[in-house]
Amino acid sequence: MNLNGAYEYIQKHERRFVDELIQFLRIPSISAHKDHDQDVERALDFDRKKLESLGFRTEVWPTRSHAGLFAERLVDPAAPTVLIYGHVDVQPVDPIALWDTPPFEPRVKDGMIWARGADDNKGQHFAQIVGVESVIQGGGGLPVNVKFIIESDEEFDGEAMAEVAPQHKEKLRCDAFVVSDSNFPDADHPAITVSLRGIQAVEVTLRGPSGDRHSGEWGGMLYEPIDVLRWVLQNLKDFKTGRVLVPGFYDDVLEPTAEERKAIAAYPWNDAQKAKEVGVKRLFHEEGYTTRESGTVRPTLQANGIIGGYTDEGFKTVIGSWARAKISMRLVHNQDPERILHLFEKHVRELVGDMAAAEFRRFGAGRPFRAEIKNPYVQAGLRALESGFGKPAVAMGMGGSIPIVAPLVELTGAPCVMMGFGLPGDNLHAPNEHFPLACFLGGARSAAAYLNEVASRVGAGSSR
Amino acid sequence: MNLNGAYEYIQKHERRFVDELIQFLRIPSISAHKDHDQDVERALDFDRKKLESLGFRTEVWPTRSHAGLFAERLVDPAAPTVLIYGHVDVQPVDPIALWDTPPFEPRVKDGMIWARGADDNKGQHFAQIVGVESVIQGGGGLPVNVKFIIESDEEFDGEAMAEVAPQHKEKLRCDAFVVSDSNFPDADHPAITVSLRGIQAVEVTLRGPSGDRHSGEWGGMLYEPIDVLRWVLQNLKDFKTGRVLVPGFYDDVLEPTAEERKAIAAYPWNDAQKAKEVGVKRLFHEEGYTTRESGTVRPTLQANGIIGGYTDEGFKTVIGSWARAKISMRLVHNQDPERILHLFEKHVRELVGDMAAAEFRRFGAGRPFRAEIKNPYVQAGLRALESGFGKPAVAMGMGGSIPIVAPLVELTGAPCVMMGFGLPGDNLHAPNEHFPLACFLGGARSAAAYLNEVASRVGAGSSR
Repeated sequence: MNLNGAYEYIQKHERRFVDELIQFLRIPSISAHKDHDQDVERALDFDRKKLESLGFRTEVWPTRSHAGLFAERLVDPAAPTVLIYGHVDVQPVDPIALWDTPPFEPRVKDGMIWARGADDNKGQHFAQIVGVESVIQGGGGLPVNVKFIIESDEEFDGEAMAEVAPQHKEKLRCDAFVVSDSNFPDADHPAITVSLRGIQAVEVTLRGPSGDRHSGEWGGMLYEPIDVLRWVLQNLKDFKTGRVLVPGFYDDVLEPTAEERKAIAAYPWNDAQKAKEVGVKRLFHEEGYTTRESGTVRPTLQANGIIGGYTDEGFKTVIGSWARAKISMRLVHNQDPERILHLFEKHVRELVGDMAAAEFRRFGAGRPFRAEIKNPYVQAGLRALESGFGKPAVAMGMGGSIPIVAPLVELTGAPCVMMGFGLPGDNLHAPNEHFPLACFLGGARSAAAYLNEVASRVGAGSSR
Repeated sequence: MNLNGAYEYIQKHERRFVDELIQFLRIPSISAHKDHDQDVERALDFDRKKLESLGFRTEVWPTRSHAGLFAERLVDPAAPTVLIYGHVDVQPVDPIALWDTPPFEPRVKDGMIWARGADDNKGQHFAQIVGVESVIQGGGGLPVNVKFIIESDEEFDGEAMAEVAPQHKEKLRCDAFVVSDSNFPDADHPAITVSLRGIQAVEVTLRGPSGDRHSGEWGGMLYEPIDVLRWVLQNLKDFKTGRVLVPGFYDDVLEPTAEERKAIAAYPWNDAQKAKEVGVKRLFHEEGYTTRESGTVRPTLQANGIIGGYTDEGFKTVIGSWARAKISMRLVHNQDPERILHLFEKHVRELVGDMAAAEFRRFGAGRPFRAEIKNPYVQAGLRALESGFGKPAVAMGMGGSIPIVAPLVELTGAPCVMMGFGLPGDNLHAPNEHFPLACFLGGARSAAAYLNEVASRVGAGSSR
């Protein structure tokens, strides 16, 4: 294929691609909020129409939650097949007051696109689609078979698509599974992510008295749900060392190897500078591990939200009848989310005893992932990034989770090439999310280059 | 005076009195919510007009927060003067979904009036007003001088009226200060409250990172505001013993005397039955003290509300940039709320260190109170309750706080007669607040009887 032709095509149509992304970002596809269900559908439809316009055959796959999109354009049964992942749903936008401009009224400023989903994941996977278009229209046509699997539920259930994937095993057959849902350490180091933490998320509600009680009348005579919740939280994680206190939590944890620790130490990172960026006096780290190790190859536990009692304006002297925490655990090889959930629930029930009634509501789970850096499809990814961004690419670990990665790798047997285009400061899941245009266009070029690398240097079947 | 005439008047006009109370309860006078400021004014105006219709001279006293009402009807400079307290403002109503009927659409059902404020404090102090009306209209006229001091800020600032009271010292001069803002242990034991806990309420906000952060990306590398808040809470109160851990907190605490402990033990109370009533498996108590002692004569600390991170529908994997707790401490003799606040803030600042920025917002404070049970005006209260309810009356301690009591006792030098008419199950500060009609009417009779007792058996100046 003609990679330069594809690059020229991207340059020539840059403005249209940005406009298309802006249209995509206008859709408030928040999967966690039921009143946005139609928007989530509209966002999936946006990708469907775009891919159909590029000659792809599409199918919508229902799930127990929001549906997924499958698309394929097969050019040669003998050629390698690349399966590309994305998700069209986005995180909620609160606290809305902290956004400088409305989250679903995208605008370009200071060389970036500002909107919810600009990076995660509309911008990133749309760069892949743009890369594919450039190869078709400017690069002489696809040199390999290309498939897409696009979720609209990654930020909510997280497992719904993985659950139905085995029904479509034959359609999902591929030689490489490309995921653009990660970031570079900084703008000067394009990177392939070779490890991801898994996740287990669960909401715990503790119910005490049958209604709110006057704290003057009852203070000192009740096990207060907020107190019991705090007691649970303090027994979930050691505040000083960062160790998770759920019995058995570390049983299956693989310690990072000396080689991994060396690679992590080489990653461009400065504690003091990062603390300043994030607005804190100093960073935390698990005892015995560096900050960066704590954030990527070590498991941890976060209370992502707590609520209980009176939280509105003013003061109300009540003992609240219930208290709730949303808790997620970040997992590493070889922790199993199901086993961790079981250990977690058992531990919490024992802590709570008869002081309250404990209810558990499970949210998304995902297994941790590790890639083999020497795999030729992963190596092709590093070369594609170097070509697309014009800078040497590195391999790195990432702290976040992409629940579908581990099951799809297992299902397809294909190596996962995590070629994300975002930057750490893009405010994912936070107000003022943005995505640099340089990342969007460099990502599109890298996506085109990847198909060229696979076609010209790897060849079918060489990965197994 | 003719007490029987007053009792007959109450019986004859019972329906009108209930209708008047219902009109009063329709006013949503929530002092903690700014958008109800006009309603709070309307509620105060309701009392002003009612008292003026009974021949009282009234004055509205501005404060730094909501205004107060003063009213007086002086019949004889040589007669004793009774000052009666009430408050027209009410607690917020959330969680609104748990109310069986709307909180400001009062209705009579099962012999009770159901509405926010039905007991606390519209119902209770309106019973006093009804008692005064019955003496004027049916009892041959007031035998003593009567004054009212009515707050509209008790459930919000709590100290605003006490702050301006010294400016009106001469007007507030009285021989007994009667407060109907407490309850009986049960329907068979009308009671005078001889001790009240004080309060110090404060909101703590901890701020960490400059915005919410993705917990996959940052989990394990930050001091999370929710974690720091939990660390603070666990160092404020020992979860197992109930001891408050603020250094110096117990320095000025007077231990209950053997006599007091005996009186408390005699109070009609059954742990198992109370646990059942309140919907919990078992009650808590401070180590070394009975449940009832824990709830009345021992200081304690409650987190009345906590919030942080993502608390809406679904799940959001964030590390929230801030976390907040509303905390109140119940105080006993001789703890000073100002000193306790100082110790509290110092302790919290030390715990937080540089892990977050701590902000404090002070809410209402009130000093603890103890009455002398042998005082003739207190004894007159016990006899008035026996007459009004037809049952033997007892003396008891109460866990709640009425911030104005201690400063008014200090200012006037008069004994405080805490003659409340509520029951423990009336759902004060909670959904489905209600007030038994028997308490309302018995309270009105007792209020009439109190004026008779003071006039006929105590006499001016006998209390000092």
